[in-house]
Amino acid sequence: MEFTIQELAHLLGGEIKGNPEDRIHTISKIQEGKKGSVTFLSNPKYEAYIYDTNATAVIVNRGFTPKKDLEATLVFVEDAYVAFSTLLDEYERLTKLQKTGIEQPSYIDSTASTGENVYVGAFTYIGARTKIGNNVKIYPQAYIGEEVEIGDNSIIYAGVKVNARSILGKYVTVQSGAVIGSEGFGFAPQQDGSYKRIPQIGQVIIKDHVDVGANTTIDCATTGATIIEEGVKLDNLIQIAHNVKVGKHTVIAAQVGIAGSTEVGAHCQIGGQAGLSGHIKIADKTGLGPQAGIMSSIKKEGAQVLGAPAFDIKDFMKTYVVFKKLPQVMKRIEQLEKKLG
Amino acid sequence: MEFTIQELAHLLGGEIKGNPEDRIHTISKIQEGKKGSVTFLSNPKYEAYIYDTNATAVIVNRGFTPKKDLEATLVFVEDAYVAFSTLLDEYERLTKLQKTGIEQPSYIDSTASTGENVYVGAFTYIGARTKIGNNVKIYPQAYIGEEVEIGDNSIIYAGVKVNARSILGKYVTVQSGAVIGSEGFGFAPQQDGSYKRIPQIGQVIIKDHVDVGANTTIDCATTGATIIEEGVKLDNLIQIAHNVKVGKHTVIAAQVGIAGSTEVGAHCQIGGQAGLSGHIKIADKTGLGPQAGIMSSIKKEGAQVLGAPAFDIKDFMKTYVVFKKLPQVMKRIEQLEKKLG
Amino acid sequence: MEFTIQELAHLLGGEIKGNPEDRIHTISKIQEGKKGSVTFLSNPKYEAYIYDTNATAVIVNRGFTPKKDLEATLVFVEDAYVAFSTLLDEYERLTKLQKTGIEQPSYIDSTASTGENVYVGAFTYIGARTKIGNNVKIYPQAYIGEEVEIGDNSIIYAGVKVNARSILGKYVTVQSGAVIGSEGFGFAPQQDGSYKRIPQIGQVIIKDHVDVGANTTIDCATTGATIIEEGVKLDNLIQIAHNVKVGKHTVIAAQVGIAGSTEVGAHCQIGGQAGLSGHIKIADKTGLGPQAGIMSSIKKEGAQVLGAPAFDIKDFMKTYVVFKKLPQVMKRIEQLEKKLG
Repeated sequence: MEFTIQELAHLLGGEIKGNPEDRIHTISKIQEGKKGSVTFLSNPKYEAYIYDTNATAVIVNRGFTPKKDLEATLVFVEDAYVAFSTLLDEYERLTKLQKTGIEQPSYIDSTASTGENVYVGAFTYIGARTKIGNNVKIYPQAYIGEEVEIGDNSIIYAGVKVNARSILGKYVTVQSGAVIGSEGFGFAPQQDGSYKRIPQIGQVIIKDHVDVGANTTIDCATTGATIIEEGVKLDNLIQIAHNVKVGKHTVIAAQVGIAGSTEVGAHCQIGGQAGLSGHIKIADKTGLGPQAGIMSSIKKEGAQVLGAPAFDIKDFMKTYVVFKKLPQVMKRIEQLEKKLG
Repeated sequence: MEFTIQELAHLLGGEIKGNPEDRIHTISKIQEGKKGSVTFLSNPKYEAYIYDTNATAVIVNRGFTPKKDLEATLVFVEDAYVAFSTLLDEYERLTKLQKTGIEQPSYIDSTASTGENVYVGAFTYIGARTKIGNNVKIYPQAYIGEEVEIGDNSIIYAGVKVNARSILGKYVTVQSGAVIGSEGFGFAPQQDGSYKRIPQIGQVIIKDHVDVGANTTIDCATTGATIIEEGVKLDNLIQIAHNVKVGKHTVIAAQVGIAGSTEVGAHCQIGGQAGLSGHIKIADKTGLGPQAGIMSSIKKEGAQVLGAPAFDIKDFMKTYVVFKKLPQVMKRIEQLEKKLG
Repeated sequence: MEFTIQELAHLLGGEIKGNPEDRIHTISKIQEGKKGSVTFLSNPKYEAYIYDTNATAVIVNRGFTPKKDLEATLVFVEDAYVAFSTLLDEYERLTKLQKTGIEQPSYIDSTASTGENVYVGAFTYIGARTKIGNNVKIYPQAYIGEEVEIGDNSIIYAGVKVNARSILGKYVTVQSGAVIGSEGFGFAPQQDGSYKRIPQIGQVIIKDHVDVGANTTIDCATTGATIIEEGVKLDNLIQIAHNVKVGKHTVIAAQVGIAGSTEVGAHCQIGGQAGLSGHIKIADKTGLGPQAGIMSSIKKEGAQVLGAPAFDIKDFMKTYVVFKKLPQVMKRIEQLEKKLG
């Protein structure tokens, strides 16, 4: 893909200072600008970079006046950040996979249905009684089990596994290697010390606008459903156990684990590698720090916690300051003991 | 799947109070009962739910006498919990994939053998000299490498990778995306600061009745075998390194990591995200708490530990209580210092 | 595979004491020696094992004189450890998959190119404009997206996903289930509490001699590239976020997570389950302990840290010693307070 600065300025409604015929083929940050790339300057903190950048074009706010000579062609717009963001969207739209149709060989059960304008990649498997909506893209080597539903405009990347009975909403994106609807981890201890599997006959329900990261796993419920509410964003390698519920617009970073039947509220933010015990409830708008260990419910909305077991982040930081000094603290105690005999 | 309460009562050997013709199509917890579902009441703690439940039928103990009016049809049995468990098993048996035979296209090497009543899904690959037992189900897109053995009645879900020389016992279940027999992580440091790969020529041996979770990885041994003993239950996203041994009937929660050559005893329970260093031994019946960091061997049977590095859980909790108060403790020390000048 | 001790001695340039006709079919450690295996004795610490081992042959240094009778046939060489290492390499070379050619069914886009002596397994997908070098082995069910490059002599195991625009160097090995080039986790918060996806138009660049573990995930950059430098070794289930850079010959153990835009130096060693925050820099030759939590940059080369948040490992261990005794420390403070009234 390639375009001229003239075409770029036209797309963004901007004016050019420099050579309108220069050609652009990629997008970069201003610190990483190179020949053939377009970048932007919005935050004055980054102004120094504009005089050195190798980028061919820089999108700037209309008020911008250079303090030195510069080589890049400038494109003046109302709001450089918004214009750049528009450009990113447009660039992605143009470069993204445009395929539609059913690639061969693939396996679609005769009782499954697919909507209009669908792409099904080669080596993808679609099971019995499954329904695929309109404009859905399913990349190669995906497995969509029996009685699954996938809503309109969803994207299922290569090698994703969606097991039986899972329901995915509209505009859901699932990255490569994620597993949805694996069996919940339920075993009843027997008298001889062995364990008997408890049937996991429930399902996974994923609402609209949810993103699921690469190699993340979401287990089906024992009975009922594991539920991921609208707009939830899950990063890579996350574990969501059976019967968990994650509330609307909660964002969860990579490698977090949530044990069985726990309910996470809406608008929460969970840092990487945090772990949540089973059968607890986390209030709306809670912030869990990275590697936090959450062993009991958090009832107060908007709490921010850190540590394992976690508590209020400000208290944790105060405690941590003393913790780091414990050997000196110990010496002060020994001094006191000496003085007192 | 649908059945009448009459049929249900017949299966469980129970008596009906209510409408035997009502139809059931799913199973739920009593708190989540809805029209068309059957649930059960065993623990008197949950009795309140029975008067409000929307479930069509409730399985109850023969001695049960309702204290109020209720809408659900009751099915009286000797032991409601056992009957419900039987029902779950039966429901799962009926709804589970009934497929047998070799779906096309699939790839089975001419030197591989498959037993009776086997299912091999489309896009599955079975390598040279591999032996698949009777009644094995291998879902689509699984990879079974060369010289692998899979015992009778095992289930390999979609997209599982079983690499060369791995041996799986009978009644083994492997969830989607798990990788068995990936190369062990062994590299010898060279004088120039680079690393040279150490060949990993060993194998993975998984005994009978083992469950392996989704996207879990089990590396092959450098020489010899990485061994998962009978009845071990592994949750999702677990890492088992080369030459590890996990003892019989040990249960390991999600995202646990076990480094190379470590031996975990029998009947242990390991909480989520715990990490075990390499070349250590963990005694039988040990309990490792969630996120525990285990840096040395645990020799005493039945120990329960928490923390990182972990120690006795009761001691940890006492220590943690003081830890949380460290800023106040510090103030008390300063007070003492003031008093003593 | 099977060979005689005579053939073995010839390969290693060694002399035999015992039966040259005995047959060898595997390689073992001296503690695990069994009939038909060859092992070695180099470190005198292990000498006791040689008198009991069931191994058929033992490779020993030329100077070695047994102190007791032994049953195994001995093969005398200049350096037993080096000879054993040569033998491992040779054994692996002989037993490894020797396949070349394009297995069917597979999908190779008409605009993709493949080098000489390439293996492409069945059910593998290779997208448009992708270039595969010479001697590359791509196992079954791999997904190689559009505009990908894979350098000479690289090995891509079964079920690996390499998404669009990723560049892999020469002698790169990627274990089963790893995902390269999944979308970076970037979402802009909106005024209504929801999140808008930020297009991720960058790529992943992996240099020569890099190893990537099973089910590890490496996200593509927002713009520019996520870069894994030459000789880096990544274990299983690691998360590398968008725009991360990992320096040459750094070794990272399983389940580590590195958040967005962080730069890790060269020759670092990172222990299992450690977590690194985003937008920080780690100096060359840093050692991060297992489960370490790294929340800010480490500027001093060669630092060794532990804990969460992590600090100098020696200081951590001193602190930890006091931490474990906190309940007793508390009692001593109470004693002091009593004495002082």
